[in-house]
Amino acid sequence: MNSEENLIEKQLSSEEIFDGTVLHVFRDEISLPNGNTSVRELIRHVGAVCVLPVDSEGNCFMERQFRYPLGRVITEIPAGKLDSPQEDRLEAAKRELKEETGMTAGKWTFMGYYVPAAAYSDELISMYLAQDLSFGETHLDEDEFLSVMKVPLSEMVRKVMEGEIADGKSQVLILKAARFLQC
Amino acid sequence: MNSEENLIEKQLSSEEIFDGTVLHVFRDEISLPNGNTSVRELIRHVGAVCVLPVDSEGNCFMERQFRYPLGRVITEIPAGKLDSPQEDRLEAAKRELKEETGMTAGKWTFMGYYVPAAAYSDELISMYLAQDLSFGETHLDEDEFLSVMKVPLSEMVRKVMEGEIADGKSQVLILKAARFLQC
Repeated sequence: MNSEENLIEKQLSSEEIFDGTVLHVFRDEISLPNGNTSVRELIRHVGAVCVLPVDSEGNCFMERQFRYPLGRVITEIPAGKLDSPQEDRLEAAKRELKEETGMTAGKWTFMGYYVPAAAYSDELISMYLAQDLSFGETHLDEDEFLSVMKVPLSEMVRKVMEGEIADGKSQVLILKAARFLQC
Repeated sequence: MNSEENLIEKQLSSEEIFDGTVLHVFRDEISLPNGNTSVRELIRHVGAVCVLPVDSEGNCFMERQFRYPLGRVITEIPAGKLDSPQEDRLEAAKRELKEETGMTAGKWTFMGYYVPAAAYSDELISMYLAQDLSFGETHLDEDEFLSVMKVPLSEMVRKVMEGEIADGKSQVLILKAARFLQC
């Protein structure tokens, strides 16, 4: 028997609360490891990708984007949802980078997964480092507005360390890339 | 005029979809920067804290916890929701660390904010480094089951870099703490 068997929760029933475009919300009754019952509220999400593009001079490309839930413009790395759960994640990363920044990359490195909110969402984000960059035209979604800025990666690391970057996936990938690239 | 005025979305109407215990789900109609309308689905969350406890020998304390949305046990740092939006965040961090690991800390360092999912949640997590640790009894919530393990911080950094830690807040705080503590 797995020694972590005593941590496992089991589904008793599941009620769909909301079938939205982005959010699919469920309220499940569960049995706890001690046999009692409880409730878990959760979101099922199609999944997403994020990309840190870094050029040959050590600059990265960040976005300024208004995030409605926060009510303000924040600094983030390029990112986007999968078109479907089956979509190839690297292809999605290439598409999002191209759409949002106009860039294509000759070198792609998978940098691991990122689970944003394990307590209430099954969203899984694949992180990529994009290098050997070429520049072209952007093709934003019709409800997407953002501006792109070029910043030295070392400057972004400083901003993350000083608490100037709130976005979680951006903090992770900037610090991971800096360690990976030894800067 | 702010040069980022052309990124801002404005609320036209807001519909409450679900008023749950953890998740409060809304579907808002908005006006886009170009004057068109669109929809944003979002969660309003009370807010949370997370803590990386590190002892004088450079070991940190991680939790193994079943996360129902993912359907598996994952490795995470201690964390928890605020009791109310007004709760002092450092006090919440002290409470969660004590409840989940039995530890108290003589030295607390604020390590910045973490926004897990800016696209669809207003959740804001405050991150803390806890040092000068003392050990006591745990007091878990009645629906909370987890085990605590002691691991060198350098080993956790390796796990983050090799993609073994999926949880976003844990990745951020481990890498930030390692850089802050220069290890």
